[in-house]
Amino acid sequence: MMDVKSHVQQLGRQARAAARLLARADTAAKNRALSAMAAEMRKHSKEILDANAADVAHARGEGRDSAFVDRLTLTPKLVEQMAQGVEQVAALEDPVGRISDRVKRPTGIEVARMRVPLGVIGIIYESRPNVTADAAALCLKSGNACILRGGSESLQSNRAIAACVRAGLEQAGLPETAVQLVDTAERAAVGELITMTEHVDIIVPRGGKELIERLQRESRIPMIKHLDGVCHVYVDDSADPDMAVSIADNAKTQRYGTCNTMETLLVAEGIASKVLPRIGDIFKTKNVEMRADDAALEYVSGKKATESDYYTDWLAPIVSIRVVKGLDEAIEHIAKYGSQHTDAIVAGDRARAERFLREVDSSSVMWNASTRFADGFEYGLGAEVGISTDKLHARGPVGLDGLTTQKFVVLGHGEIRK
Amino acid sequence: MMDVKSHVQQLGRQARAAARLLARADTAAKNRALSAMAAEMRKHSKEILDANAADVAHARGEGRDSAFVDRLTLTPKLVEQMAQGVEQVAALEDPVGRISDRVKRPTGIEVARMRVPLGVIGIIYESRPNVTADAAALCLKSGNACILRGGSESLQSNRAIAACVRAGLEQAGLPETAVQLVDTAERAAVGELITMTEHVDIIVPRGGKELIERLQRESRIPMIKHLDGVCHVYVDDSADPDMAVSIADNAKTQRYGTCNTMETLLVAEGIASKVLPRIGDIFKTKNVEMRADDAALEYVSGKKATESDYYTDWLAPIVSIRVVKGLDEAIEHIAKYGSQHTDAIVAGDRARAERFLREVDSSSVMWNASTRFADGFEYGLGAEVGISTDKLHARGPVGLDGLTTQKFVVLGHGEIRK
Repeated sequence: MMDVKSHVQQLGRQARAAARLLARADTAAKNRALSAMAAEMRKHSKEILDANAADVAHARGEGRDSAFVDRLTLTPKLVEQMAQGVEQVAALEDPVGRISDRVKRPTGIEVARMRVPLGVIGIIYESRPNVTADAAALCLKSGNACILRGGSESLQSNRAIAACVRAGLEQAGLPETAVQLVDTAERAAVGELITMTEHVDIIVPRGGKELIERLQRESRIPMIKHLDGVCHVYVDDSADPDMAVSIADNAKTQRYGTCNTMETLLVAEGIASKVLPRIGDIFKTKNVEMRADDAALEYVSGKKATESDYYTDWLAPIVSIRVVKGLDEAIEHIAKYGSQHTDAIVAGDRARAERFLREVDSSSVMWNASTRFADGFEYGLGAEVGISTDKLHARGPVGLDGLTTQKFVVLGHGEIRK
Repeated sequence: MMDVKSHVQQLGRQARAAARLLARADTAAKNRALSAMAAEMRKHSKEILDANAADVAHARGEGRDSAFVDRLTLTPKLVEQMAQGVEQVAALEDPVGRISDRVKRPTGIEVARMRVPLGVIGIIYESRPNVTADAAALCLKSGNACILRGGSESLQSNRAIAACVRAGLEQAGLPETAVQLVDTAERAAVGELITMTEHVDIIVPRGGKELIERLQRESRIPMIKHLDGVCHVYVDDSADPDMAVSIADNAKTQRYGTCNTMETLLVAEGIASKVLPRIGDIFKTKNVEMRADDAALEYVSGKKATESDYYTDWLAPIVSIRVVKGLDEAIEHIAKYGSQHTDAIVAGDRARAERFLREVDSSSVMWNASTRFADGFEYGLGAEVGISTDKLHARGPVGLDGLTTQKFVVLGHGEIRK
């Protein structure tokens, strides 16, 4: 135990020191490091894949299920995508030092805001090794040092990727301790990382609900996180039926395991007979299990939905369906059962859509678009370190801006306060 | 104890319900409520002053010191200022619903951000009754419900002010539960307020270090806060000596008890002989005790500074003084001893000033201006609910924007994700 504690504490001290150097690193140096990292990943693709094969063999030996092994497994194509992802971050605008909201005050001083890094970011993730490259790139570009703690099952893969990251930093003359891997599979390392308030400014957890709930209970450091993605599509009776069917289908079935997938479909009673039979047929064809209320069961075949179904983030080919009177009941339902992640209205009526957009208190609200668009790339943030359903600081997909903060800058000419 | 718990829980439930109504209240209604509140305060000035006189008599009876009684005491002029403050908030632009960062994406969707309230804000403050009016006004204008917990010594005054606030809300057709007072002097009420995660979104503590430290240990709700204001003025050897003397004087002596008052003066050795004797004379005349290092003691008269002096937020006519080699040592000193509140450089050299502004990691950094300017009114935010030295969400003086968050809004035309 003491070894783990001192290992993580040392990473923390080194990260804090590196963060001060990174905060003042210029954009060119950061971009050089990112390009070099990508080149190293391509050059050492074989080492990364060999290390990953060892992780995969070990996971299979431990009896991990195929979904787990899928998430863990890298391929030459995925390594190339990782390298390209790092290069894409290099191409993003550097947020650090950006000045905004400059105003001249009657006293003569000028007040502005300057975007600056947060400091040290701890990232805790599970089995996907590509997070190592993505997170390192985003933290570096935003001027933050980071400490990465991947799943113990992907430790060999993460070590191989982290070696490329370090080589890239070194080639650009930046401190290698800017990106550090917690190099132990011991679980106690996480406990240390999330309570090391003097060395870590923010924790970004990426993983399942069990992980997030544990961190929420135990972390003494603020987190950027989302717990559940109970996302809704509400079909208003002013909706175009074809559009409603297309969006409901896409929001549920384009991918089942993602946080922005629709879990509950709400349909206004005035349009239920037009859209529910068609949606029900599509779901049936795609083997999506339907849990519906009595009114919906008149149009679709499925089980009767229970109260707890409406709270459930299925992450599976299951959908809850409910018929509501109209907009007000839909907004009430979302306020009660939703997780403030992403909710969409399909409607032709602008006034109702605007009420939905304004009154639904979620990190993303959408009008006539699929909830699956809630994503950093799709929003044009370039990349994301995760999606936040918290209200403070960063809400929704978190890109480079979410990894920075703003300080006030005052430019004077000797002004004093009267 | 159970009574206190159920009282506070009930306030929480009511606040949550009120917050949903307030979030959709239009600007005109909020402004009508603010104007009516100000009118009620003027109309009931006598009741407010009588209630305050009872609080003051009680505090004197309890043997409270004169500084405490000063903070507690209202006058007809202060009541008028309170009313004017509320009217000034009415005149500020409403942040709620403001759309920004609108971009069209290649997929056809438009992505934008909409400013929305945080929800329910708990404000915990000590003896100044005017906070009741200020905080209520800022929370209301930003669309948030609030629960106010003032010091037990000002309970009568707070009740009288809160009655005016409620009357104003009622006249504007807004829920009276939008602003609620914790109507008990029991200390357990604070414990309940700061752990009621389901009903309160953010806690804003306004008070001394002891209060903040307690809340920091016990709160389970995120806070907007500052703990210390160990602010520095660094006089570079490129400074104009007259300006340096004027700013050092103002930053220390304009008011001693405020968080943005200078606590430590750092002077580059190259200019020490020009500025320190003059500054030392001023401080001596104003009875400011000097705690200085050996190099500074060659120019000023005072005690030898100890290591712990440099960490101290004096909040009193005491100042620490240190001679440094130059910019790098000043930045190092501030990183080690500072509290990331407000720090200023006096310099003629632009490159050095820019390094200071960029590298000093504080909520406000200033060039050639007094630290005393770190204030919501001075920055043009209109008013402030406090100053934050946290890095997440709101940093520096917190005005209406700091009491809101942004959600993503997606406008589509039936787009689905490929």
